[in-house]
Amino acid sequence: MKLSEIGEFGLINVLSKIVEDGRNPKNPQWKNLLAGIGDDTAVWRNGKRLALATTDCLVENVHFKRGQSSWRDLGWKALAVNLSDIAAMGGKAEYALVTLGLPHYTETESIIELYEGMIDLAKMWGVVIAGGDTTLSEKFFVSLTVTGSSGKRPLRRSSALPGDLIAVTGSPGMAAAGFKLIENGAKENEIDSPLRQAFLRPTPRLEEGTAICASGCRTAIDISDGLVADLGRICNSSGTGATIHTSMVPVHPSANKIFPAEALQMALGGGEDYELLFTANSGAIEKVKRTASSRITVIGEITAGPAGVVNLIDENGSAYRIEKAGWDHFGK
Amino acid sequence: MKLSEIGEFGLINVLSKIVEDGRNPKNPQWKNLLAGIGDDTAVWRNGKRLALATTDCLVENVHFKRGQSSWRDLGWKALAVNLSDIAAMGGKAEYALVTLGLPHYTETESIIELYEGMIDLAKMWGVVIAGGDTTLSEKFFVSLTVTGSSGKRPLRRSSALPGDLIAVTGSPGMAAAGFKLIENGAKENEIDSPLRQAFLRPTPRLEEGTAICASGCRTAIDISDGLVADLGRICNSSGTGATIHTSMVPVHPSANKIFPAEALQMALGGGEDYELLFTANSGAIEKVKRTASSRITVIGEITAGPAGVVNLIDENGSAYRIEKAGWDHFGK
Repeated sequence: MKLSEIGEFGLINVLSKIVEDGRNPKNPQWKNLLAGIGDDTAVWRNGKRLALATTDCLVENVHFKRGQSSWRDLGWKALAVNLSDIAAMGGKAEYALVTLGLPHYTETESIIELYEGMIDLAKMWGVVIAGGDTTLSEKFFVSLTVTGSSGKRPLRRSSALPGDLIAVTGSPGMAAAGFKLIENGAKENEIDSPLRQAFLRPTPRLEEGTAICASGCRTAIDISDGLVADLGRICNSSGTGATIHTSMVPVHPSANKIFPAEALQMALGGGEDYELLFTANSGAIEKVKRTASSRITVIGEITAGPAGVVNLIDENGSAYRIEKAGWDHFGK
Repeated sequence: MKLSEIGEFGLINVLSKIVEDGRNPKNPQWKNLLAGIGDDTAVWRNGKRLALATTDCLVENVHFKRGQSSWRDLGWKALAVNLSDIAAMGGKAEYALVTLGLPHYTETESIIELYEGMIDLAKMWGVVIAGGDTTLSEKFFVSLTVTGSSGKRPLRRSSALPGDLIAVTGSPGMAAAGFKLIENGAKENEIDSPLRQAFLRPTPRLEEGTAICASGCRTAIDISDGLVADLGRICNSSGTGATIHTSMVPVHPSANKIFPAEALQMALGGGEDYELLFTANSGAIEKVKRTASSRITVIGEITAGPAGVVNLIDENGSAYRIEKAGWDHFGK
């Protein structure tokens, strides 16, 4: 069966099962593992704390095109997408390993700029680049692994409960709007600059992740594959349903202004947003609002079911139809 | 400047310097880091133990060609090359994250076989696959990060001392001989089978790495880029020279039989061997010989200098010339 038939998440399920079939309860690594394949990061017990590790890759012509983002932005983003996974667990990021696949015609200066972009962001969060690998490759790719730690119970995908409110950081859909502007080749201006930045230099929500964790929330995910798709993953893992009130989704004013007909669809399914979606009771969410510096918006609630199904309701109480429910690398 | 001008190790030096320039002594991650870019694995303090992390990548048409190795062998090798780096630090391997770059026409069954090969080896060493990333890519690649730990001072590249003996595990050159047989399309037979296996399914020397560390040795490297090139790295890091007595290099009998004119060159510069090269006084090396199950052979000694220079001496005491001193992905 071709990957295009089984899809990215079908493949991950198959691989997860093969790995799980090899589980050996006597092996201390299995005993200590709290979250494996299928969560934002791997989590294992490490003395009195938890160790976190995640990996994420940007591939030329798949995640970016040459000329559409600078090398410096690309370096920033390669680290940001990994830090976002640590944030979604409520953890602290510590070390990064950087693997570069480089065509032979690559300019050394480009790779230096790439590293400078990574280090810009690394310094903000105390992350140290501790190693990596360089290899020849026909197309450029950069793959990072970031390790981290947590002193608290990590934010899982499987712990949502019916009745939990669903909240989101920032303004989903900004990255999709920014990508469209860049793809169209429109000239940058003041109004659309935050949208472009959301795509080119996303802000990992590490501070918010820590606040979410400290406020007693138990469930979070980053919405890099699209708000509805990633909420669907929480619902699948938790055995719950969910309802989103589309009028409550905090679409960014610039996105609304430039793409009035599409901005809501971008917010629900655009992907490439590195915002956190989390669920908890209202008291815990209020606590997050008081401590986090970015905007926190309640957009719906977790329901009893059907499991895995996300309902979208518009301001008139009618069902709202999403055009594109998220990314699948291998899907048709 | 193109990468082909600066070369792989020139690039690593440049990147290492950029990272080092950002060192912040107040950052606990910097304070705890014992080995960063430029050693076999990253090493940092983690409570009373040390944490290790390494990453290594296999790229289609760079590290392997379709049809020359099975998917199962490729999975084994992708993990083995990472475990070899943990072995070269004297550590224990614990968790693996697996990143797959997959063309859209990939068969799901191929990836299942790849995972089965990884799990074959993972089970032998108690390593658990705890996560990863899958992405579309024009050419196939598999990049692994393996974490580990150590309770002892890790084996560094920078601690060799003049007067140390140089020893090596197993028979270097087997992988290069095996690769040549596969490349030539020769039919497999009993005599050449161990050579092919050395290339297709290398054995990571984890047990030997632990024995080397426990025996009081301080310096080791895996010789995946070629014995002389990797010894040169120890010499560069330690500020020493080295002498290899070519007649003492334990060339494998099958390699000698099939490639009588080339077997020694393969052992010195062939690369893709996942044997360990280590340096220590004779007492420590004798201890390793008593505890390790694979063959341990003394092949030369560390000298005062010139720093970074490896001298090769044949059985008549004459200088021996190596044709190919190792791999450089971007070199001409």
